[in-house]
Amino acid sequence: MTSDAQAPSLEARFECRVHWGDCDPAGIIFYPTYFRWMDAATWAFWELVGFDAQRLRDEHRTMPLVSADCHFLAPARQGDRCVVRSRIGRFGGKSFVVLHEIGRSDGVALAKGSETRVWGRYQSGPGSPMKGEPIGEDVKRLFRPR
Amino acid sequence: MTSDAQAPSLEARFECRVHWGDCDPAGIIFYPTYFRWMDAATWAFWELVGFDAQRLRDEHRTMPLVSADCHFLAPARQGDRCVVRSRIGRFGGKSFVVLHEIGRSDGVALAKGSETRVWGRYQSGPGSPMKGEPIGEDVKRLFRPR
Amino acid sequence: MTSDAQAPSLEARFECRVHWGDCDPAGIIFYPTYFRWMDAATWAFWELVGFDAQRLRDEHRTMPLVSADCHFLAPARQGDRCVVRSRIGRFGGKSFVVLHEIGRSDGVALAKGSETRVWGRYQSGPGSPMKGEPIGEDVKRLFRPR
Amino acid sequence: MTSDAQAPSLEARFECRVHWGDCDPAGIIFYPTYFRWMDAATWAFWELVGFDAQRLRDEHRTMPLVSADCHFLAPARQGDRCVVRSRIGRFGGKSFVVLHEIGRSDGVALAKGSETRVWGRYQSGPGSPMKGEPIGEDVKRLFRPR
Repeated sequence: MTSDAQAPSLEARFECRVHWGDCDPAGIIFYPTYFRWMDAATWAFWELVGFDAQRLRDEHRTMPLVSADCHFLAPARQGDRCVVRSRIGRFGGKSFVVLHEIGRSDGVALAKGSETRVWGRYQSGPGSPMKGEPIGEDVKRLFRPR
Repeated sequence: MTSDAQAPSLEARFECRVHWGDCDPAGIIFYPTYFRWMDAATWAFWELVGFDAQRLRDEHRTMPLVSADCHFLAPARQGDRCVVRSRIGRFGGKSFVVLHEIGRSDGVALAKGSETRVWGRYQSGPGSPMKGEPIGEDVKRLFRPR
Repeated sequence: MTSDAQAPSLEARFECRVHWGDCDPAGIIFYPTYFRWMDAATWAFWELVGFDAQRLRDEHRTMPLVSADCHFLAPARQGDRCVVRSRIGRFGGKSFVVLHEIGRSDGVALAKGSETRVWGRYQSGPGSPMKGEPIGEDVKRLFRPR
Repeated sequence: MTSDAQAPSLEARFECRVHWGDCDPAGIIFYPTYFRWMDAATWAFWELVGFDAQRLRDEHRTMPLVSADCHFLAPARQGDRCVVRSRIGRFGGKSFVVLHEIGRSDGVALAKGSETRVWGRYQSGPGSPMKGEPIGEDVKRLFRPR
């Protein structure tokens, strides 16, 4: 889901590289790899604003997916250095949209995707059932451009 | 992309299971796993109608992605037996849409996604550049319900 | 670690298939895939003797790795149907060795590996620290040939 | 296979991080991830001495595995920053051993493994059958400490 009328958002950068094992017999990136990157980019985005993995664990928070999509614009090959640029597309009551643009280091756009996630909390520690929680103003504020 | 006005299509079934390594620290399936399954289900669908991996290699054919999306409806856990039911959503000139519904063996719907792919051919063997080709009537006919 | 003087063991069979995304640009299986299979085969082995995923979760049990190795005998390609045959190589006090033989459906041996694991228990639910526990005779007995 | 009497070798450093999707329901790294890292570290090592992915493709070279093993020393969790330090353990006629030590950024040793690989060449481009080739002195020299 790509929201056009979006509030300005901080942008995070997640650097990665196409490894041998990320590619398929066509010699190009196996597409689920982009979703692995988008997932890692979202966690890195949260870390950037203060919610690192340790804090998320300590606070029993999690961010399950509602949906995800990706458009593939150009193939990537082993050795390509890439960057995922992520920003908030929209904050809903208990959910949010992260928009991701994946590019090669030479500027070529490779893919463009989005994730819709719930801002959730485990009811009794990691692995236990999870409930969505309202996203407070204090959280939203962290993602405004600085 | 989900097309509502679609031609009737054969339906393929791809059986799979949620393994320990498919799950994340929340104890549920790591979402790119669904895209791995959808990819494997598409190859199995092609095999079902006569295009197995060996034939696709011999004919230098490939099926690169234009886009993919998935809606996640319910979490899956280690040990869950699942089935991906796939059908053709639409045939374009050189591209096609595969619709996937992923369910648990007890009937619970887990996810619903789609892939848009190009019907392509390597110009000089696997790994070489690829070009889209018109999808012939002979190919489309293979996917009609029997 | 391959133990030659081993007690007779039940043998488990884990069926799997080489998918497109399991292969690399050389057109053959990406080797960490074999370790993913060995892991899944071990969980399936435990399930076979009564310890399915749900029971292991309920009893807060886990099986972390001490070491793993694999010898690669022949390449596998997309579409190959395979089976992992697993048996217990050795039971130690709190650890055990699982021996895996991976073959193609036509009988060709593809790989041969082993895992050494600890029989562990989470101290307070999944994700919490884990402690090794003595493997009781009741557990060992489950793996004897029937 | 760990060779103790080894020639001095250049050491390569491959930096990586434990992502959410690299971990399993125990909240720690899923062990095949280490083998994915070792594979990527070997390609990065070759790149360091002049054989980058593009050159290896152009020269139709590949490095299939004979065997791989890993000892797991301490668990890693999401967010951990790691480094794989790799060196040549031994050069055989047509094969070589790469030794890998995986550590966390705070110095804790996480895992120690090795890969035995063949120095191979595709007979007619990527994806075609592969043959081992003698490792020349010019290649071995590249891996000597500088």
